[in-house]
Amino acid sequence: MKKHNFSAGPCILPKEVLIKAADAVMNFNNDNLSLIEISHRSKPFVEVMEKAQILVKELLDVPEGYSVLFLQGGASLEFLMVPYNLMRDGGKAAYTNTGTWAKKAIAEAKKFGDTIVVGNSADKNYNYIPKGYKIPEDADYFHCTSNNTIYGTQMKEFPYCPTLMVCDMSSDIFSRKIEISHFDLIYAGAQKNMGPAGTTLVIVKDEILGKTGRNIPTMLDYTTHIKKESMFNTPPVFAVYVSMLTLQWLKALGGVEQIEKMNQEKSDLLYNEIDRNPLFTGTAKKEDRSNMNVCFLLTDENKKDAFDKLWNETGIRGIKGHRSVGGYRASIYNSMPIESIQVLIDVMQKLEE
Amino acid sequence: MKKHNFSAGPCILPKEVLIKAADAVMNFNNDNLSLIEISHRSKPFVEVMEKAQILVKELLDVPEGYSVLFLQGGASLEFLMVPYNLMRDGGKAAYTNTGTWAKKAIAEAKKFGDTIVVGNSADKNYNYIPKGYKIPEDADYFHCTSNNTIYGTQMKEFPYCPTLMVCDMSSDIFSRKIEISHFDLIYAGAQKNMGPAGTTLVIVKDEILGKTGRNIPTMLDYTTHIKKESMFNTPPVFAVYVSMLTLQWLKALGGVEQIEKMNQEKSDLLYNEIDRNPLFTGTAKKEDRSNMNVCFLLTDENKKDAFDKLWNETGIRGIKGHRSVGGYRASIYNSMPIESIQVLIDVMQKLEE
Repeated sequence: MKKHNFSAGPCILPKEVLIKAADAVMNFNNDNLSLIEISHRSKPFVEVMEKAQILVKELLDVPEGYSVLFLQGGASLEFLMVPYNLMRDGGKAAYTNTGTWAKKAIAEAKKFGDTIVVGNSADKNYNYIPKGYKIPEDADYFHCTSNNTIYGTQMKEFPYCPTLMVCDMSSDIFSRKIEISHFDLIYAGAQKNMGPAGTTLVIVKDEILGKTGRNIPTMLDYTTHIKKESMFNTPPVFAVYVSMLTLQWLKALGGVEQIEKMNQEKSDLLYNEIDRNPLFTGTAKKEDRSNMNVCFLLTDENKKDAFDKLWNETGIRGIKGHRSVGGYRASIYNSMPIESIQVLIDVMQKLEE
Repeated sequence: MKKHNFSAGPCILPKEVLIKAADAVMNFNNDNLSLIEISHRSKPFVEVMEKAQILVKELLDVPEGYSVLFLQGGASLEFLMVPYNLMRDGGKAAYTNTGTWAKKAIAEAKKFGDTIVVGNSADKNYNYIPKGYKIPEDADYFHCTSNNTIYGTQMKEFPYCPTLMVCDMSSDIFSRKIEISHFDLIYAGAQKNMGPAGTTLVIVKDEILGKTGRNIPTMLDYTTHIKKESMFNTPPVFAVYVSMLTLQWLKALGGVEQIEKMNQEKSDLLYNEIDRNPLFTGTAKKEDRSNMNVCFLLTDENKKDAFDKLWNETGIRGIKGHRSVGGYRASIYNSMPIESIQVLIDVMQKLEE
């Protein structure tokens, strides 16, 4: 049975990417060696790393003066690398608290120094994006989370920022056009729109680094990885390669501009059904609804078993909501075809009948 | 043409592991979903993580009181996690300097506090393992590197250690029997004997942690990963799965005891040829020769082109020595079949004729 994979991450990847990835595990570059058993210093792999970096720059229109890195450790390691690299000893940072991941980022920053929360949507279980807050000019940097997978909210606009602007874009990078020059540091775990778990994309403005006076451990210092072009130590070869394949797929599709249109169409389709169908209700404030993670509840909990049976029978997977919100969460990242969303809508309509 | 992959790492993996890994990228667990697009919290993947941990415990006979972790960041991240977790504020650590990787570990420790080098083979370009040194009792821990890939040396015995014993076993773990109880913390990048690049194995005695008084960032604190059973954040799913497959392969083969015999046989074969053939000479002191990385030089540099042509024609790859030593390095890890070593020996004998 064909599966419709609505997982929040690791999540669906394009079929052609999976086929090429499996091929490379057996025979990479027609050299009768596996991608995962060749030296990362070999020419074929160095080319993969270079291509991946160039694709990021092309797809996101990254200006001069920024470096593109592929690191390890996920966004969770970035939570501490950001203050290590950007918060001066005795300095201060400003954060928005828009959910679970933002809270974790804040907790790490607090280990390094004064960390203030300038916008917070905890009062309504993070079902909206805080707005109208002021970022203090004397903060070393401001940190926000562009998309909140668990709560299904997304920043549609970014605030005026009088200091360095840092953003965790793990769950919506490459899904929409972003003006990179508005940001000083962007990071994103690969496992939503870019590739498999195991690598983290970092886009950083070179000139902001080296100014904190901190004695940073080598592996946690962004300048280490810039100097060595993400090859300071053995990179996660497979994750970088599959990310490169996914970015190639995105480019061939028409790039970020094209996928943004498709994502809008897909999410409109699903939100329209949620709003139309009396059996369902969305959890996020309408203006802040995420195009990546669509969270919704049954209006009548007694219909739960019937609904679960219906979607399960059609091959839908990974649609259970996070325990913090309950209900359902349809994660509809870049690689999710509109056909799978139609299958879900059909099920929702079948339940209504 | 069949290739004989002598790369130092990432390096050769068993053929059956590659086949299973490629299959899982297309269809994991017969669920018509890829291994790399399912949730890491799903039952099938949680089972992979558990199996991998159990296999490590079985194969290395890990006693009670130790935790087995699969982390990210390679040995290079461990270089700083070790002092972060084990060196008291104002404390002291003792290291041996046996080559490039040991030096990097020492450099990180120095960022955290007093770091003394108790054994050092830099005087002879690291061609031997220092012995007879004394580890100070007041050191918070002692750190050594069990095998030095670049220089082809290996610790055959481990010193008496009056403090915590930490060992970087990246390049020879699972190659020979090790008495785990002699160690308090062992770490190893996966990409030699365990799997693809992208995960790091850590075996740590639980009771040694939480005693430094340091404010450790969450992701760098071993206790975080122990509590969450290596699932604090999204693990490198593919690297952990392929590691599990390789450990299953090793268990089916007869475990560490059996592979140790095979490794001894393989390295004896090659070292005997190096010692017998007047065209070659080994670089490491005989008693310290590594069973994993066999480093050798031509006695007559004029024969270089002829030798390079010969081995290249037979499908041998990855045999060039590291620039710090020059000459040749045959990395003959667990998965390297004796037949490939015979091919190399045949080439060496052909050159002699």
